[in-house]
Amino acid sequence: MSADALAGLIAQTRNPSVIGLDPRPEYMPPGLITAPTLAAAASAFLKFNKAIIDATHDIVPAVKLQCACYEALGPPGARALRGSILHARAKGMYVIADGKRGDIGSSAELYSKAFLGKTEILGERLEAYPAHALTVNPYLGSDNLDEFLKDCAEYGKMAFVLVKTSNKSSSEVQELPAGDRPLYRVIADQVDRAGARLVGKCGYSSAGIVAGATQPRFIKELRSLHPRLFFLVPGYGAQGGAAKGAAEAFDRKGGGAIVASSREIICAWQKLGTGDFAQAAREAALRMRNELRMAVCI
Amino acid sequence: MSADALAGLIAQTRNPSVIGLDPRPEYMPPGLITAPTLAAAASAFLKFNKAIIDATHDIVPAVKLQCACYEALGPPGARALRGSILHARAKGMYVIADGKRGDIGSSAELYSKAFLGKTEILGERLEAYPAHALTVNPYLGSDNLDEFLKDCAEYGKMAFVLVKTSNKSSSEVQELPAGDRPLYRVIADQVDRAGARLVGKCGYSSAGIVAGATQPRFIKELRSLHPRLFFLVPGYGAQGGAAKGAAEAFDRKGGGAIVASSREIICAWQKLGTGDFAQAAREAALRMRNELRMAVCI
Repeated sequence: MSADALAGLIAQTRNPSVIGLDPRPEYMPPGLITAPTLAAAASAFLKFNKAIIDATHDIVPAVKLQCACYEALGPPGARALRGSILHARAKGMYVIADGKRGDIGSSAELYSKAFLGKTEILGERLEAYPAHALTVNPYLGSDNLDEFLKDCAEYGKMAFVLVKTSNKSSSEVQELPAGDRPLYRVIADQVDRAGARLVGKCGYSSAGIVAGATQPRFIKELRSLHPRLFFLVPGYGAQGGAAKGAAEAFDRKGGGAIVASSREIICAWQKLGTGDFAQAAREAALRMRNELRMAVCI
Repeated sequence: MSADALAGLIAQTRNPSVIGLDPRPEYMPPGLITAPTLAAAASAFLKFNKAIIDATHDIVPAVKLQCACYEALGPPGARALRGSILHARAKGMYVIADGKRGDIGSSAELYSKAFLGKTEILGERLEAYPAHALTVNPYLGSDNLDEFLKDCAEYGKMAFVLVKTSNKSSSEVQELPAGDRPLYRVIADQVDRAGARLVGKCGYSSAGIVAGATQPRFIKELRSLHPRLFFLVPGYGAQGGAAKGAAEAFDRKGGGAIVASSREIICAWQKLGTGDFAQAAREAALRMRNELRMAVCI
């Protein structure tokens, strides 16, 4: 689904937020992992995700899956990733694979096929991890990015390119002076230009950017410079970003951004001391929605 | 295995080369994929890789697996990746996972566990994709890199950080002026500093860099500036890098680098018009070894 589809789901739920389905063994309620194996942990991850999707799909438009969580479980983790993607799709949610992938063109093409497009085997076109969007790392330049944007155009998908990430050390590379502007600004310009042909009816391009909620002043600057770019804003909640900071990512009509929170939602059961993790997640997701509705004109 | 282990295997085989096990459906000999499914393709990939490993492990010290090739096949691809890693290890080869992973610290930690370290489930420490080394993307800064280097120290593994890649558009970001030096030089400095504590008996650090064979002048410059960094040099053969260019990555003693070739070796059977792809790969690997022996004092 393109930027139009994502904007539509956000409007429908009046909720510009995305739940980070980033499970870790220590986030699982007691008893959900039944044996000390990768397969048992992966099976718990899938059950956990499905329950959270079932408990939130009517109020939250999207999920974001951090690929590292699943890769740490080996092949069973890959099955849990695919199963979670399929379940979220079946429930009508927008699915963002947070892989931060990037490679030389011919390999980027395969990553794009894996998450956005299709892999052809003996004439059949098959889907590996059929997300609606993928996060992309810009370090390899346009022959990397173009592969993803090609599939965005063909299949109506989105790519969110890392511009200014939410981690502490993001300044070490992303804020380096690259000519007359810092590097993250150069990257945002590259994405804006490359995505110009992918602007939808909603006014946003299917080539978006990642700009962390922990960095409000950068978000504000980027928003004013790039009215067509859709912003994926991670780091809300547990990473320290608050609604006011994240609100900088939205335009005057309250559009053009989606804010991600993971631990605050999927681990809400731990704070409440309850075993009903899905209900706790729903309540935390409602809180986040209400905070965002207060901070953003939506 | 650390830089010392890799240097030892290179010395033992007198061959500083690594075979890129980067299978694609169109690289498979006729009949090897038995059905139009992801599982059948993955099963073919694993058979293909095992046969090439069996035919070359006595003359080639290492394999490099491009993760995108496997991810494009979904969960069955993940099984083929893991199976290929385990088979290469069992045959005594050094295994480099070419994932170009990078994320905020807490997620980078999981990628590192997936490929270099161990994932703990109910007290058991388990291996997901147990490679000896992983390629790493530098865009997120030191809290990303540090997670990988921590596992390099703990488990005797290596991380190769993208500095100057072999693709055409690598200049668009990597050659941007970042203060008084181009960006790739800043990244190389960061890796050199971060890896100082991981220098082994061989004189090289377990924090290495990726510098493409298609870029000899950059390789030469980086080699002279960073005597302790181990270079992973992709792009030999099919991507246009030749032995003379790749030779710039080696120091005067013929050490400190390993050169990767994929298509020239794993697709050698296509040029020869033979079905014996493993024997064709062995012959191509011997040619590459001999070219490198001519160009490098080893």
